[in-house]
Amino acid sequence: MISVVLLGAGNVATHLYKVFHNSDAITVTQWYNRHVDKISTYKNEVSVTDSLIELVEADLYVMAVSDDAIATVSEALPFQDRLVVHTSGTASLYDLDAKHRRGVFYPLQTFTKDATIDFSAIPLCIEALKKADYKLLKTLAHAIGSQDYKVSTEQRKRLHIAAVFANNFTNQMYRIAHEITEANQIEFDVLKPLILETAKKIQNMSPYMAQTGPATRGDKQTIKKHLNLIENPQHKAIYKLLTESITETHGRKKL
Amino acid sequence: MISVVLLGAGNVATHLYKVFHNSDAITVTQWYNRHVDKISTYKNEVSVTDSLIELVEADLYVMAVSDDAIATVSEALPFQDRLVVHTSGTASLYDLDAKHRRGVFYPLQTFTKDATIDFSAIPLCIEALKKADYKLLKTLAHAIGSQDYKVSTEQRKRLHIAAVFANNFTNQMYRIAHEITEANQIEFDVLKPLILETAKKIQNMSPYMAQTGPATRGDKQTIKKHLNLIENPQHKAIYKLLTESITETHGRKKL
Repeated sequence: MISVVLLGAGNVATHLYKVFHNSDAITVTQWYNRHVDKISTYKNEVSVTDSLIELVEADLYVMAVSDDAIATVSEALPFQDRLVVHTSGTASLYDLDAKHRRGVFYPLQTFTKDATIDFSAIPLCIEALKKADYKLLKTLAHAIGSQDYKVSTEQRKRLHIAAVFANNFTNQMYRIAHEITEANQIEFDVLKPLILETAKKIQNMSPYMAQTGPATRGDKQTIKKHLNLIENPQHKAIYKLLTESITETHGRKKL
Repeated sequence: MISVVLLGAGNVATHLYKVFHNSDAITVTQWYNRHVDKISTYKNEVSVTDSLIELVEADLYVMAVSDDAIATVSEALPFQDRLVVHTSGTASLYDLDAKHRRGVFYPLQTFTKDATIDFSAIPLCIEALKKADYKLLKTLAHAIGSQDYKVSTEQRKRLHIAAVFANNFTNQMYRIAHEITEANQIEFDVLKPLILETAKKIQNMSPYMAQTGPATRGDKQTIKKHLNLIENPQHKAIYKLLTESITETHGRKKL
């Protein structure tokens, strides 16, 4: 049984609380938040507190707090030589105070407040300075059904950028497609199966191999027709730049 | 029972043959291709031919041929006043010869040669000049389990552009994410659940509502850090342009 003290009350903290609480291999010994009223609904299940002085001993302390608070809160913890991890995609392991055994436990997923989260579909990016601590974090990941990945602070920073492309920028492509369909009185629903299939395809195939379309084929005629039809100047600029990018990836001459 | 004569032997033609053949409500009376050897493996199931003169009568003729061939093949058909449709996302209904009752039956999906296709997940974009023909195409779509959408030629051209954003450009976002992870010795697998979740999220929520990340939050610090870390100049240009696009969509001041 792994004993955990959880710190924070945001989306990540709340989802972690629920999945830790439901795991047979984990016990949440205590839940801390600066404003205790935010977590007081759980006080029948778990000991809650707003006082760092009152924190009890545990195998590890999971700080699911904002990036800005990692340094100050970890410094304010009234103990040392215990395993303290943060859950941030961008903060360094070294943002944690050096008096602790430090680590990172970063679940790579978009967390929406009220949605149920299936942790078996969430990769956990793990980092620790000591081998035994790394092993404990790995056990913690498995206890909530997640797959673990060893990711260093430098790698995690790049992974976060890759996630901006794979999530935010991808979603903006959907948004532009939505704008185009809406402007032409077409139901956006018609594109939803294609969007899902595009994401499914790369689960077993590289994005390179999965690519299709006019830029990949070097079909200048279609690209020209499309550019003539696009009125929104920003959509046009994006169409041009991403067509160039695909052309470069697939080794065609500049169009 | 709807009787169909199919023309062509590419990916779309082959997938349509299979799904038509398996439907209780459809009978493929004949399959034509210029090179009959490409479809001769099916000759025990269906009458195959490479001669337009030999084409038999049917409720409709489905031309799943290349865009360039639509005008010439439809002109060469040795009959008139019958329902002839093409399956192209970009060709006009009027590319079909005017001697026919004309229509379009366009399945909006990426077709990979050997993959099994689930037509119940493929929207069918339908267009026809006559009401009765439109109704028949609608029945044909339902007979293969697809949902039908009424899409005019002008709408279909725009829809094709929207599909380039939703499919090709989205896939290029995955590709760039792959390049970033690969350059940093991170397994691309770590991003796959996020990619799937991003596509699933907009099935029940608008892309506008689903958006998250630094540009949506107006988090200038993170954007600046990311731009400093991105070395590839094309990745940087794309990051900047798409960040501007998100910023504009979400009504933040220029960053």
